[in-house]
Amino acid sequence: MASNTFGKLLSVTTFGESHGPAIGCVVDGCPPGLALGPEDFRHDLERRATGRTRHTSARREADEVEILSGVYEGVTTGTPIALLVRNTDARSRDYDRIADRFRPGHADYTYWQKYGVRDPRGGGRSSARETTMRVAAGVIAKKWLAQRHGVRVQGWLSQLGELVPAGFDAGAIEGNPFFWPHAPQVPELEAYMDALRKSGDSVGARVEVVAEGVPAGWGEPVYGKLDAELAGALMGINAVKGVEVGDGFASVAQRGTAHRDPIGPGGFESNHSGGVLGGISSGQPLRCSVAFKPTSSLRLPVGSLDVEGNPVEVVTTGRHDPCVGIRATPICEAMVALVLMDQALRHRAQCGDVAVPSLFNASTQCTTP
Amino acid sequence: MASNTFGKLLSVTTFGESHGPAIGCVVDGCPPGLALGPEDFRHDLERRATGRTRHTSARREADEVEILSGVYEGVTTGTPIALLVRNTDARSRDYDRIADRFRPGHADYTYWQKYGVRDPRGGGRSSARETTMRVAAGVIAKKWLAQRHGVRVQGWLSQLGELVPAGFDAGAIEGNPFFWPHAPQVPELEAYMDALRKSGDSVGARVEVVAEGVPAGWGEPVYGKLDAELAGALMGINAVKGVEVGDGFASVAQRGTAHRDPIGPGGFESNHSGGVLGGISSGQPLRCSVAFKPTSSLRLPVGSLDVEGNPVEVVTTGRHDPCVGIRATPICEAMVALVLMDQALRHRAQCGDVAVPSLFNASTQCTTP
Amino acid sequence: MASNTFGKLLSVTTFGESHGPAIGCVVDGCPPGLALGPEDFRHDLERRATGRTRHTSARREADEVEILSGVYEGVTTGTPIALLVRNTDARSRDYDRIADRFRPGHADYTYWQKYGVRDPRGGGRSSARETTMRVAAGVIAKKWLAQRHGVRVQGWLSQLGELVPAGFDAGAIEGNPFFWPHAPQVPELEAYMDALRKSGDSVGARVEVVAEGVPAGWGEPVYGKLDAELAGALMGINAVKGVEVGDGFASVAQRGTAHRDPIGPGGFESNHSGGVLGGISSGQPLRCSVAFKPTSSLRLPVGSLDVEGNPVEVVTTGRHDPCVGIRATPICEAMVALVLMDQALRHRAQCGDVAVPSLFNASTQCTTP
Amino acid sequence: MASNTFGKLLSVTTFGESHGPAIGCVVDGCPPGLALGPEDFRHDLERRATGRTRHTSARREADEVEILSGVYEGVTTGTPIALLVRNTDARSRDYDRIADRFRPGHADYTYWQKYGVRDPRGGGRSSARETTMRVAAGVIAKKWLAQRHGVRVQGWLSQLGELVPAGFDAGAIEGNPFFWPHAPQVPELEAYMDALRKSGDSVGARVEVVAEGVPAGWGEPVYGKLDAELAGALMGINAVKGVEVGDGFASVAQRGTAHRDPIGPGGFESNHSGGVLGGISSGQPLRCSVAFKPTSSLRLPVGSLDVEGNPVEVVTTGRHDPCVGIRATPICEAMVALVLMDQALRHRAQCGDVAVPSLFNASTQCTTP
Repeated sequence: MASNTFGKLLSVTTFGESHGPAIGCVVDGCPPGLALGPEDFRHDLERRATGRTRHTSARREADEVEILSGVYEGVTTGTPIALLVRNTDARSRDYDRIADRFRPGHADYTYWQKYGVRDPRGGGRSSARETTMRVAAGVIAKKWLAQRHGVRVQGWLSQLGELVPAGFDAGAIEGNPFFWPHAPQVPELEAYMDALRKSGDSVGARVEVVAEGVPAGWGEPVYGKLDAELAGALMGINAVKGVEVGDGFASVAQRGTAHRDPIGPGGFESNHSGGVLGGISSGQPLRCSVAFKPTSSLRLPVGSLDVEGNPVEVVTTGRHDPCVGIRATPICEAMVALVLMDQALRHRAQCGDVAVPSLFNASTQCTTP
Repeated sequence: MASNTFGKLLSVTTFGESHGPAIGCVVDGCPPGLALGPEDFRHDLERRATGRTRHTSARREADEVEILSGVYEGVTTGTPIALLVRNTDARSRDYDRIADRFRPGHADYTYWQKYGVRDPRGGGRSSARETTMRVAAGVIAKKWLAQRHGVRVQGWLSQLGELVPAGFDAGAIEGNPFFWPHAPQVPELEAYMDALRKSGDSVGARVEVVAEGVPAGWGEPVYGKLDAELAGALMGINAVKGVEVGDGFASVAQRGTAHRDPIGPGGFESNHSGGVLGGISSGQPLRCSVAFKPTSSLRLPVGSLDVEGNPVEVVTTGRHDPCVGIRATPICEAMVALVLMDQALRHRAQCGDVAVPSLFNASTQCTTP
Repeated sequence: MASNTFGKLLSVTTFGESHGPAIGCVVDGCPPGLALGPEDFRHDLERRATGRTRHTSARREADEVEILSGVYEGVTTGTPIALLVRNTDARSRDYDRIADRFRPGHADYTYWQKYGVRDPRGGGRSSARETTMRVAAGVIAKKWLAQRHGVRVQGWLSQLGELVPAGFDAGAIEGNPFFWPHAPQVPELEAYMDALRKSGDSVGARVEVVAEGVPAGWGEPVYGKLDAELAGALMGINAVKGVEVGDGFASVAQRGTAHRDPIGPGGFESNHSGGVLGGISSGQPLRCSVAFKPTSSLRLPVGSLDVEGNPVEVVTTGRHDPCVGIRATPICEAMVALVLMDQALRHRAQCGDVAVPSLFNASTQCTTP
Repeated sequence: MASNTFGKLLSVTTFGESHGPAIGCVVDGCPPGLALGPEDFRHDLERRATGRTRHTSARREADEVEILSGVYEGVTTGTPIALLVRNTDARSRDYDRIADRFRPGHADYTYWQKYGVRDPRGGGRSSARETTMRVAAGVIAKKWLAQRHGVRVQGWLSQLGELVPAGFDAGAIEGNPFFWPHAPQVPELEAYMDALRKSGDSVGARVEVVAEGVPAGWGEPVYGKLDAELAGALMGINAVKGVEVGDGFASVAQRGTAHRDPIGPGGFESNHSGGVLGGISSGQPLRCSVAFKPTSSLRLPVGSLDVEGNPVEVVTTGRHDPCVGIRATPICEAMVALVLMDQALRHRAQCGDVAVPSLFNASTQCTTP
């Protein structure tokens, strides 16, 4: 299988360049009978879109999804669902000056070294524009997970540069453009971003995603473990440099007596594992955390080479996010949802479809071969 | 594809339970013409093996690899290479008492909830015993990478509980049982481990892996990115809770001007990226870091349930490592090598086989469709 | 991987229903550097199109291909190539009367039994309309195979009902709407088809495909054999009921002394094998033959049931081909080309890219691991 | 995925050479809870084994299957099932004289041209010895299909050279070494084979396989169609040159009014389709037919070349079957069973696990997304 397809049984194939005619995806393997229409995509695409506030890129993407196939009379039919988004605000002239040189911190040099040819407009295929289709495909996964299994996937920004939330209120997350879980800090964040934008620099961020309602039993040992697939899916998002599940790197300095989660009559008594044991979901909330690097597209100059090897200075004047991690929250959610739906289908392939009560939480234990 | 196979073009399928008759693997897709014999496996299996020092499990695994196929007159033939290791020191009686209860922090509960049946002896399939075959398969990948591309993969322990190396000497790593890169600290580590073992508790660790000599151009955007596949491969190792590439989570608080790696006439002037840009290798050293949790197999009791839901106390009396991260170094190396070899083959499938000089380092740029 | 994707390294994902807004495909894994434009698709799509002569369906498909991605300045970039064809002459009202009943010989009943919901317009996803995209993808494969390896794929009609060619002239094939290799018979074929159309009935056909210039060495034993993949690819075309390679079913009554192809100093002295031995190409012309059933879409009534189980009479009044095998020639060629290009890429992944002279024909023998 | 693995969700990876230490397979994806022991494999391996009668090769394979993993206390656990068969009667000296030359009609030349190295002993990997493991894996599939879905797979010899059955009695098939469905002809077949063996020549054969009890709804359009996967699976068996489903090549000369199967209140009124419509099972018996070529291993000499290109005469003196098609019956059954079980698992992944009554036969229609 070539490498623009994600997932085994729920397979998402994306295509398209940042400044080409369109981007799109084919979602293959969705069960029949799920209600689906263009309006389902609006909310999450709007959450991901640039141009909503002054804190993200000024590129104004309309991002209207056209459903080309796989839906008949408002319901999925089991055949592949193709989604198309035309690129409407692609200002390629912004990129003319960088066609012959490599922007440090970007994929310009590596694409050129790999393929011997590249589309320089907006980063071409390496642009985060592609993640639009991940979010669109994720909408289908989220809807199916919610309806079929009661699973809810929610992400938020858990660090912006040096800033960390001073409190946590799930209800606050969708009420500000930063997906920040503590509303009183929002003015501080706005000032921080304004200063950053003014300085011409950028900053990294951390996104946390939790999936609640995942039954025990999803995940395929040993090379399709739930946590391994989450790590691969999240590390594959543009600009990601680290992934944690549960306590993550904090586990390094922990003692076993502190980390292991005791089991009582009411279930697990803590959740250091992040909801996965042996690569299989435990029925606890699934918890992961993702590190985003600061974007390299800055108006502050940096040394580089052109394609002939001559030293040049690179200045990026296009419309860019000073913190790409902010808009990444819905992308992370989408990847988590896609992994979960794929694993849910794989689980019912091998272990059947009959949910059984577990000792203390929902489960999908195999009851018959 | 079912889930006990790893890799697309270099496919490794492992099988076997901790206390079953044998463990093994099938390595499919290895190019013909590579010299290979049973003796090739000894060094790395010895590095991974238990029972070498008092700081790891006392289980004494002989781990003699039998080559069942794919090699003729000492050379690979292009057909699948099957490797077999008999389990010789499997003391199943150690596990009788835990067959009906769930060890917290282990996969007992999740396997049972998923499959409705499980092999409790030593954790069955979820045991780290399986990683023996990852190391064996990794030997083939390391050998091919070294001979064909001059790639060298080396790991070390970069944190043990709270302890971090006070210096770095690559030559020291293989000279102590901890894979620690600073020899003067070894007595301190031994004392630390002795105290830990005496306390009955366990501790986490961090392993760092670097691959040198990787040419620019390996990695398949967008759902087969080199860093994404590394993250998936490493997170899939038993007890791993976090993975970083390059600066990892430190990127969160960095500025873009600090993180992006300028390019000068001699090449990249820093390596915050860890050798990957846009999911493709840059020709710089590939750098990743892995967090291991403390093992949950302790003689200190913990609350749990039995399969009927009754509260029980679990005490683990088998032979276990107080820090599983120590022996994980060769396992991490193996997974990195397997990802790299698979990507190398995928690269030459799409972009051909002719290495070309890059502007400043080795490259495998496509020169003809 | 879900099931609307074909091929391992050259992966073609198709989508779309007969009367939906559009059909399309994503071709992933094509090497960079191949010249490609919309005009490349015209010739083969025209060969496959309905409405060219009175002997095929009157549906007039414009079939203009839009390239949405993967091509920059007229050259493939190594990223996925998305192709889109809008459905312009979809007369769905023709199908209103069959939405609630099952056409015998069609997929109506099986789709409904599988999915519980179906798009009845023109057969929805099960329509041969989908094969448009196979032909489009096949254009890319044919072009790459010709330019990179000098391979030429040519099909023809080798039987129409009872009629068989009375002679063979490769130059005649493209000179008549039947792809018939013997020009003097064309008036007879036209009369045959006119009588058939008048009778309201349909007839089967046989298509032969030969690929010349295939080097020795393509094909992956034992579950990716060249002949096995050809068989799967060809049997997967709508209405196909049989596939042969080389002498096919005639081998059943042959003696081994007659079937085996002796090897002389100039190479193989016959080609009963059809160019494949042990699942690997031998360097001889690759030869296969495909049986198409007569279409079931007839204006002559047939008994069936409606979705409630009541007996009904089905009469098909849409625009249909009295012999679907005629237009199938370019589809068969496309599937053969797609299999060959995929195998070529897989071969160079495992065995490298350096062509070596064989004893007597072109070969791609491995020269280095 | 490399190419020694068969199946998507029930994945069978085989390994081993004809005269290496062992052959084996890993069956991954089998649901947990299926009773399985070494004794399950005996019957079908005995049916496939050589040395049972004078009409097959004199090689005496013991073929005792060792279960290495995936079964605990007699029941599958959901983890990979590894099966091992040691090669005990491998007389490699028979092959010394052919190590430097290419046997016409065999894979010697193509393996050598592909890989540049080959194991010449008994054909190495290209030997039909490998099919032992297909039969072993097929045992698991047959058992699961029978227990879970009541499916029964049965094959027989439907042509031996020019001879065809003069009658059909399912009860006769297992009562003679030819799997011939008409007992009165058995003496004629024995005389035919004796004469053939005496002549030193070989002959082809045709095998028919029927699967009864397959519910409507299995098969994945459009690139995982049930008939396409059957064709690929069967064409991939050693020596196969043609595959038919339903009426196969007879469809070419049929009229649509004759071929389409009318549907009455009791179901389909004929079965020209062979139980598949649009790539999905219809609930009728699944019917396919396979052509085997005559083996090329003859003591009658044939011209060839050695590896230096010098003309040589090849005479095969090892122990060979004068008609390989005879023992192929259980192999064909195994491949059909493996395809069916894989499709059954894929169906329940996408469409769920709840069987519903169809209009007139068993079905697995999707009732909920």
